[in-house]
Amino acid sequence: MSFETPIFETPIKVRFSDVDRAGIAYYPRVVHWLHVAFEEFFEGFVGVPYATVLERENLGFPAVDLKVEFVKPMRFGEVLKVGVALERIGGASSLFRYEVRGPDGDVRARARVTVVCVALDTLKPTPLPERYRSRFAAALLPAPAP
Amino acid sequence: MSFETPIFETPIKVRFSDVDRAGIAYYPRVVHWLHVAFEEFFEGFVGVPYATVLERENLGFPAVDLKVEFVKPMRFGEVLKVGVALERIGGASSLFRYEVRGPDGDVRARARVTVVCVALDTLKPTPLPERYRSRFAAALLPAPAP
Amino acid sequence: MSFETPIFETPIKVRFSDVDRAGIAYYPRVVHWLHVAFEEFFEGFVGVPYATVLERENLGFPAVDLKVEFVKPMRFGEVLKVGVALERIGGASSLFRYEVRGPDGDVRARARVTVVCVALDTLKPTPLPERYRSRFAAALLPAPAP
Amino acid sequence: MSFETPIFETPIKVRFSDVDRAGIAYYPRVVHWLHVAFEEFFEGFVGVPYATVLERENLGFPAVDLKVEFVKPMRFGEVLKVGVALERIGGASSLFRYEVRGPDGDVRARARVTVVCVALDTLKPTPLPERYRSRFAAALLPAPAP
Repeated sequence: MSFETPIFETPIKVRFSDVDRAGIAYYPRVVHWLHVAFEEFFEGFVGVPYATVLERENLGFPAVDLKVEFVKPMRFGEVLKVGVALERIGGASSLFRYEVRGPDGDVRARARVTVVCVALDTLKPTPLPERYRSRFAAALLPAPAP
Repeated sequence: MSFETPIFETPIKVRFSDVDRAGIAYYPRVVHWLHVAFEEFFEGFVGVPYATVLERENLGFPAVDLKVEFVKPMRFGEVLKVGVALERIGGASSLFRYEVRGPDGDVRARARVTVVCVALDTLKPTPLPERYRSRFAAALLPAPAP
Repeated sequence: MSFETPIFETPIKVRFSDVDRAGIAYYPRVVHWLHVAFEEFFEGFVGVPYATVLERENLGFPAVDLKVEFVKPMRFGEVLKVGVALERIGGASSLFRYEVRGPDGDVRARARVTVVCVALDTLKPTPLPERYRSRFAAALLPAPAP
Repeated sequence: MSFETPIFETPIKVRFSDVDRAGIAYYPRVVHWLHVAFEEFFEGFVGVPYATVLERENLGFPAVDLKVEFVKPMRFGEVLKVGVALERIGGASSLFRYEVRGPDGDVRARARVTVVCVALDTLKPTPLPERYRSRFAAALLPAPAP
């Protein structure tokens, strides 16, 4: 897969409350959308609602590292698409990739978020369960050619 | 200056609405606090309220690049301190550095945010005015030893 | 029309960031959803995206009065439906009614929001334009029997 | 006591992210500030940080009824004051009153929020503990003259 033909995508509509005085999205809101896309990825691609992961399985995925490149402004009323993929899957940590595109497919933002699978009550890292690992693997981007 | 003895710092209290089911801060909220610290830096260190920058001077500072390392969880009720400094000042762009520390001074998050000075009505880059440049320069971190 | 067979409805999914430590929606977020439903009502029922109302017509609809009755908690992962209707249409002001229902149709919250049509640059009240008035009227709840 | 000489007050600074395209506070954010004032009232007047109430005492105070009158716009950069008082204290429910004032003391918003003391794990109403009741009582507004 690649971000040109993303394996999973979530629509995000830019709301009145997301934009600032200049009419463009406040950048911490874009980071919030990455989390929304992460939640949708669990429900729509992994096959388990994220609420279930938290509440019945006592697992969480706090972020430990975040990189975002804001390419073009996002404006009130636009319906964006957030593509989700994985770049690397470790023992407990996973590196998610996101691409936010505009209605015409133009890239608005790119992000990398490293999350760690933890037990929600202790916040201690715990191995990513196999049932998630196999689905995460199905969303892995191809390794770049050497 | 260094982050050990920060030249400018803003207190941030972790609110009920900032934390998630596990009682730790939702990571997009941490990114929001960086912007709050940026606003306070303008008012408290540069000497001009950020509202004035936007409304009277028609300038804005959208982020183009963001990197955050989340070191330790931040919990409901904690009063954090967000240190602000500059790492680089270009023609229109500036690289801000932030360190979020807990009540005991332990680092909770580190961030780098590159912002670009733009005319708010056109969103076109514009040279950083001298009155801001000189104050930004007063908050520059020392270059690392070669 | 009535709220039992609402003339306009918007789905709202309760997000991770919407819930608090107890796993139920933070009540100011419910108020935010009312605004989201208001935006969707403009686009889906009035026929004009709310962004267009603001940006091309220089009109806004600030709230002057708000009443919300929170009937039952709303939980992470639920897909709610927010019904929108009008109770009264005045010269510049309009009284919107909202009902938030759970996946099974049970009422979670009821709200009344009075908004005033204003010129966005001056914030002065201005008569509700006829093209909006006629559509608002199409969403009026029947007057209660005397 | 009265709201003219409030027994407890919290400063709130209007942030960049709180205002909309017209430069005035998004009304759901005002509702959020009521909760912030409620948290501060616990820590500063009741004498127990709200985080402690939740985490060590397993108590919460969800809102069941909310009324807000928005009197005048609140603008980016303003430092508001939110006065907190009680109007009525029942067995499990309490009626809080809030007044939001501008830097010059002019009223910007008035609110009434009814909250119910619940056990956080079951969300069932529970009698307001005496140690809170006595402090809430110290913030009661005088009954209106008959």
